[in-house]
Amino acid sequence: MSDAQSEYSALSPETLVSRLGNLEQIRNRVGAPESWKVSEVGDGNLNLVFIVKGETGTVVVKQALPYVRLVGDSWPLPLKRAFFEYHALTRQAQHAPGTVPEIYLFDETQALIIMEFIEPHIILRLSMMGQNYHENLAQNLGEFCARTLFRSSDLSLETAVRKADVALFADNVELCDITENLIFTDPYFDAEMNRHTAPYLDTVVASLRNDFALKAEVQHLKWKFCSSAEALLHGDLHSGSVMVSGGSARVIDPEFAFYGPMGFDIGLLLANFLTAYYSQLGYGSENEQRKEYQDWILDVTRDVWRHFEIEFSNLWRAERKGIAYPSSVFEDQGHKLASELALTKRLSMIFEDTLGFCGTELHRRILGLAHNAEFEEISDEPLRARCEARALELGRQLILNRSNISGIASVLDLAREISKEDFV
Amino acid sequence: MSDAQSEYSALSPETLVSRLGNLEQIRNRVGAPESWKVSEVGDGNLNLVFIVKGETGTVVVKQALPYVRLVGDSWPLPLKRAFFEYHALTRQAQHAPGTVPEIYLFDETQALIIMEFIEPHIILRLSMMGQNYHENLAQNLGEFCARTLFRSSDLSLETAVRKADVALFADNVELCDITENLIFTDPYFDAEMNRHTAPYLDTVVASLRNDFALKAEVQHLKWKFCSSAEALLHGDLHSGSVMVSGGSARVIDPEFAFYGPMGFDIGLLLANFLTAYYSQLGYGSENEQRKEYQDWILDVTRDVWRHFEIEFSNLWRAERKGIAYPSSVFEDQGHKLASELALTKRLSMIFEDTLGFCGTELHRRILGLAHNAEFEEISDEPLRARCEARALELGRQLILNRSNISGIASVLDLAREISKEDFV
Repeated sequence: MSDAQSEYSALSPETLVSRLGNLEQIRNRVGAPESWKVSEVGDGNLNLVFIVKGETGTVVVKQALPYVRLVGDSWPLPLKRAFFEYHALTRQAQHAPGTVPEIYLFDETQALIIMEFIEPHIILRLSMMGQNYHENLAQNLGEFCARTLFRSSDLSLETAVRKADVALFADNVELCDITENLIFTDPYFDAEMNRHTAPYLDTVVASLRNDFALKAEVQHLKWKFCSSAEALLHGDLHSGSVMVSGGSARVIDPEFAFYGPMGFDIGLLLANFLTAYYSQLGYGSENEQRKEYQDWILDVTRDVWRHFEIEFSNLWRAERKGIAYPSSVFEDQGHKLASELALTKRLSMIFEDTLGFCGTELHRRILGLAHNAEFEEISDEPLRARCEARALELGRQLILNRSNISGIASVLDLAREISKEDFV
Repeated sequence: MSDAQSEYSALSPETLVSRLGNLEQIRNRVGAPESWKVSEVGDGNLNLVFIVKGETGTVVVKQALPYVRLVGDSWPLPLKRAFFEYHALTRQAQHAPGTVPEIYLFDETQALIIMEFIEPHIILRLSMMGQNYHENLAQNLGEFCARTLFRSSDLSLETAVRKADVALFADNVELCDITENLIFTDPYFDAEMNRHTAPYLDTVVASLRNDFALKAEVQHLKWKFCSSAEALLHGDLHSGSVMVSGGSARVIDPEFAFYGPMGFDIGLLLANFLTAYYSQLGYGSENEQRKEYQDWILDVTRDVWRHFEIEFSNLWRAERKGIAYPSSVFEDQGHKLASELALTKRLSMIFEDTLGFCGTELHRRILGLAHNAEFEEISDEPLRARCEARALELGRQLILNRSNISGIASVLDLAREISKEDFV
């Protein structure tokens, strides 16, 4: 318990100091409570986030609400998501040191995590809307994916540990349910909470919702999302879950964590770079500058995958100590080449999943409940619809052709070709 | 607690009456303890099995031992497997009524299940070694698979229920570990507990263990076994886990149950028909009678898959109420055809997995620790090796070509063609 209350109660900027003022975990870093300045900055869809600034430092206080913040108390959501976020952060810190905020205190009753204030970082999505460049971004993110996914899978963990962890995170039902509905179901029919840039996109949306092959493929992807417990996913790895400053990138907000297919995290990440790419028409005044920035985004998109692939391969060769693809049948028999053959195909299966999940994320950010700021803030609606329609088409092609796309370079070519076409 | 002992203690024919004699669950069915006749009949690899026969009836008492019976107390195995068998039997009875033994009592401390004595049934494997025919066998088994698998998946169960059940069975670590090692790892290198019909098979075995593509594919299958929590599997569905009498078939011994890929159960079943097929050279004196019986076995092999496919499709159309492939995006939009398209591909993915797992089961029964009686009891070793080598080759082809085999008829053709060749 972080304060005297034995039952959950939501914090507010007014009550925070009196309720948390005696906590050493904050005082040690921030200074005496008299100096604290509290602001609520939660711009996400789910939680309260406070920044507590004092004479000697700053911390973040994140508290789950018993409902979906974006929608209100008509959509209850259990507090235990803070428990899963805490456990995910712990594991990510272990698997990919230095990439996630340090935790100072977790209070399960109050659904509260007190953690490192990451500064001077800003949200990657906003940074890209401002056409900022970040060194090492692709490497940081590709390696984050490779390390957290590889090291939480049967390639690395003791299998009894992994199975116990699968069981633990299997209880994150309600947050999985959000993904299952908002990514894989609602966008593909006229669901109540959906919205899109009407009327400009109406025809394109109708055509997409009448594409039988597409809808069947999306459900195959949903099946994989629900049943393939390959690795501990971040579960919501979009550009709003990444904070950047110069060449540093940190990953936050893993409350959607659960054991799922590796391609899901990478796919979401790539999709959010691709929405950034297509949205650039709405930002920046000069064409040359915009074109340059779009090229940079596509380079990052490509290099996230490449760095994932490189690091995953490194780990495969250096750290493969789990029950999957054991060295007993490969290296120990002098059959290193067979293990390389297996690696190549495993990567191609992850790539195929990645493209499929990337496609669904492109769709849901334009057709579903939760949209992306980079499209939303294009106030010229016909222009916004032009950008969005391209992203929708790319998503469709990736989902339908994911097993026939030879590599990440082809994805970029496709993205560029589609940017030359108009669908509305 | 079924008796006065508060700690686990293995039963024996001598102590059973005194320890269990006051249990109503037995007395009601069997009669007064004075009339009980107890025999131990466990011929499996793991447990004690007693038949308790009295003046008014018979029951089966199955008790887990704290080690692997086949190997001895040098290989400890937790008693909790009785817990998983109990929970699996309960769910199978619900999903496929009438197919599994009725449970009269489960005692967790004693790792004891008291259940229906299924008579006059005998083990399917032994019945096939005696060249007996059984009506409805394929339909019974195909429907068992379709019903237990469909109804424990996200196609049917409420997803929170399925996820909680995934978590429950994730603790069946040690029995999964047996499968992970004995099916997917040990047979593919010269592991300590392996044995095969030496020296006759030596060359064939060496060639198989040097097949890089095969070994890589087997590890992809192992990955799927470990990570694809599609449905509650029986987990050990060979012909020793099926009891038959005339046109009746019942399924027993699901202690390996856990949430895994649907194709695993069906694949094991098909593999055990195919070993029965190849072993027939060792049984029966007349060629014509043998040929007829082999044809029947292949018909059953084919029809198990066909009945699975038919019943799975029926359930897809009639009972699809889970979160997977929801009617909200298909039927409710007038897009029934899109749902049929999805069904077709889902079945083809299950078929591909089925063939792969079938191949691994064919291999491990000849190369690994646990062999099948139908091969073992061919005392003419060169003849046994001829039979076994064919099964090994079929297994290899199924694993390598599982995505390129158009249907079950091609599998039978391949099995027949291979039976005309000699590999040793």
